[in-house]
Amino acid sequence: MTLTRRYRFSSSHRLHAVQLSDEENRRVYGKCNNPFGHGHDYVLEVSVGGPLDSRTGRVVDLDTLDRVVREQVLDRYEHRNLSVELAEFARTVPTTENVALEILERLRSAWEREPATGQTQLKKIRIQETPRNIFEVTS
Amino acid sequence: MTLTRRYRFSSSHRLHAVQLSDEENRRVYGKCNNPFGHGHDYVLEVSVGGPLDSRTGRVVDLDTLDRVVREQVLDRYEHRNLSVELAEFARTVPTTENVALEILERLRSAWEREPATGQTQLKKIRIQETPRNIFEVTS
Amino acid sequence: MTLTRRYRFSSSHRLHAVQLSDEENRRVYGKCNNPFGHGHDYVLEVSVGGPLDSRTGRVVDLDTLDRVVREQVLDRYEHRNLSVELAEFARTVPTTENVALEILERLRSAWEREPATGQTQLKKIRIQETPRNIFEVTS
Amino acid sequence: MTLTRRYRFSSSHRLHAVQLSDEENRRVYGKCNNPFGHGHDYVLEVSVGGPLDSRTGRVVDLDTLDRVVREQVLDRYEHRNLSVELAEFARTVPTTENVALEILERLRSAWEREPATGQTQLKKIRIQETPRNIFEVTS
Amino acid sequence: MTLTRRYRFSSSHRLHAVQLSDEENRRVYGKCNNPFGHGHDYVLEVSVGGPLDSRTGRVVDLDTLDRVVREQVLDRYEHRNLSVELAEFARTVPTTENVALEILERLRSAWEREPATGQTQLKKIRIQETPRNIFEVTS
Amino acid sequence: MTLTRRYRFSSSHRLHAVQLSDEENRRVYGKCNNPFGHGHDYVLEVSVGGPLDSRTGRVVDLDTLDRVVREQVLDRYEHRNLSVELAEFARTVPTTENVALEILERLRSAWEREPATGQTQLKKIRIQETPRNIFEVTS
Repeated sequence: MTLTRRYRFSSSHRLHAVQLSDEENRRVYGKCNNPFGHGHDYVLEVSVGGPLDSRTGRVVDLDTLDRVVREQVLDRYEHRNLSVELAEFARTVPTTENVALEILERLRSAWEREPATGQTQLKKIRIQETPRNIFEVTS
Repeated sequence: MTLTRRYRFSSSHRLHAVQLSDEENRRVYGKCNNPFGHGHDYVLEVSVGGPLDSRTGRVVDLDTLDRVVREQVLDRYEHRNLSVELAEFARTVPTTENVALEILERLRSAWEREPATGQTQLKKIRIQETPRNIFEVTS
Repeated sequence: MTLTRRYRFSSSHRLHAVQLSDEENRRVYGKCNNPFGHGHDYVLEVSVGGPLDSRTGRVVDLDTLDRVVREQVLDRYEHRNLSVELAEFARTVPTTENVALEILERLRSAWEREPATGQTQLKKIRIQETPRNIFEVTS
Repeated sequence: MTLTRRYRFSSSHRLHAVQLSDEENRRVYGKCNNPFGHGHDYVLEVSVGGPLDSRTGRVVDLDTLDRVVREQVLDRYEHRNLSVELAEFARTVPTTENVALEILERLRSAWEREPATGQTQLKKIRIQETPRNIFEVTS
Repeated sequence: MTLTRRYRFSSSHRLHAVQLSDEENRRVYGKCNNPFGHGHDYVLEVSVGGPLDSRTGRVVDLDTLDRVVREQVLDRYEHRNLSVELAEFARTVPTTENVALEILERLRSAWEREPATGQTQLKKIRIQETPRNIFEVTS
Repeated sequence: MTLTRRYRFSSSHRLHAVQLSDEENRRVYGKCNNPFGHGHDYVLEVSVGGPLDSRTGRVVDLDTLDRVVREQVLDRYEHRNLSVELAEFARTVPTTENVALEILERLRSAWEREPATGQTQLKKIRIQETPRNIFEVTS
């Protein structure tokens, strides 16, 4: 049994890899390399799986899940410039692929530390960057 | 090859587990424990997989699938109070997790009894309780 | 300039008019007359219009709007059985038409009492009962 | 007869009015005042109305409309930082209200200069900032 | 009070005006002029308005509305080739503009002939040809 | 890491299998067997997976993916009558199941021939025929 819960956050970023030359950056990222940045309304889907708690009929406590996602992701990324304000993207280019990996890592380790999560596991995260582009990483 | 087909039904329920005390019920389910119930427009996605019928180019006969889902789920759950009217939830709390398990079991056994289903199998069901909460069980 | 802002609430109801006989109720409301009720995930769109505040570039303060809608509608209707728990539907059948009129009246009078609303006016509300049925009333 | 056509663009902005003090800016715009900006995937709906061309059965030539919107809006705003890069928002705060007014003005004057637009008129634009916030201005 | 109800139908058409030369047809309609046709999943929104029936709390009887739309539109257009099979498009090019006008006329006159419609009126129809192109005609 | 990217195309088709009698065709395909055809707005989701390029933070180059999908699918199927105009459906009935298999095969072989695709692989395609019917094939 898997629960998938949707969250949203709006951020801006600039795609510019420090490992690439200016010309390579322009070629690889096109208009996403614009020095002043641009932004998206990201839709984050977090999937958690495990056995049902037979007493409550629930796979996961939603308040716990919401708190972990809020502390690890939303409070940190909502209305932020990912390229400029966040240490994890100081030397790593904040493509949605890298954002997804970072979020997966943050949620997975927080989920393991959390006593209320019982036998459930973080299974997957999925980030919709725009309605046409969706990234998925499995735990 | 998998076909996923979407259905909808509107029902009400109250989350209240007979195994828990009144106080535990209020703590676990919050406002979903309201004694007078509340409701949702559930979106049910049924996924059936199997080999293509080489003559018809179809994986499954849609009329058969629609009839099975209507008889097993829609006719039974549509515009019903799941907590009060349905025998399967007399002692099992109708969380969407339990509703999903019940629907999976009903569809799976009906599908196996149905001659027209050939080599196809019920693979998965997915229930969207609200646009933010989605539950998935694999057969 | 009009701002439309979307809210959601999940409630249950039973359509049964005290002015009609049992048989008329069954004929008029069909399965919506089921004595145990059923439910929906309502989507409420509130439209407020007025001139732009030239200093802030805003037509309406979102915190004020959110507070008024929460106090007048969401806190009152969210996860409630509209037919059983709410005084306004004791003798008025809670069709979505009547729910819309009641919400319009509640928001309009609260909006007029609210000092922060300035020259803006509540223009319209729109309630989506299901993805196929949408009701709209203009102020 | 009105045609509404949907476009999308992703931009970033910071809400900070030069007419307000730093403290007022923080109070009015909250986290939208973050100095490093944030972003959105805007959905722009452009509505054009007029009589049908009886020969073609069309109210407006779509290629003309697409070209005007691309030249006036998309080429200018797509993947841009509205606060930093655009002259029209140097002293005007780029709230979506002001973005809507600017786009309406740009499209309306371009539409009037365009020979192929015949008797049609720009009627309305609607910008969805997020799925919950929609702004509409009528021509 | 206005009710808007959504219907869907899937049809094919070819845009080719008998009043235009072959070359003009190709220029005006582009790939929509392909002689073998193409198709769409049309979304039809029908808006009916009027006073509430104070006994039932309803603005319109949904069964009546569904029957009229089914008889006038869905039974006639669903899974049809609009250009080839329908008399009304024998000499009128089935652009979605013309389809909208035809549907409006069919629904309006049927609505007026229908005894159960009381004081309600057909207000508006809206057809979504694709998620990007929406046509609206007011009665 | 998997990227899923969405594309759309509008086509028409008639479901009529040359291996079946006329009566069988009518029974199996119902109104989809209408000799004049009907159409859909297909939504195609292409999923490509592989390791991240550590320099660019990207799993796949979007320009390459867009070009391959355009050349192999969109340029060929957009605004076409699949039953009449395409060699691959001359003797194979263009059910969405068969369309999905054909698209998977075309994209997979093109993807393998393409030098810029590196270590990525075409994982899955998903075609939404209507909002209720979705077909998925895994590579």
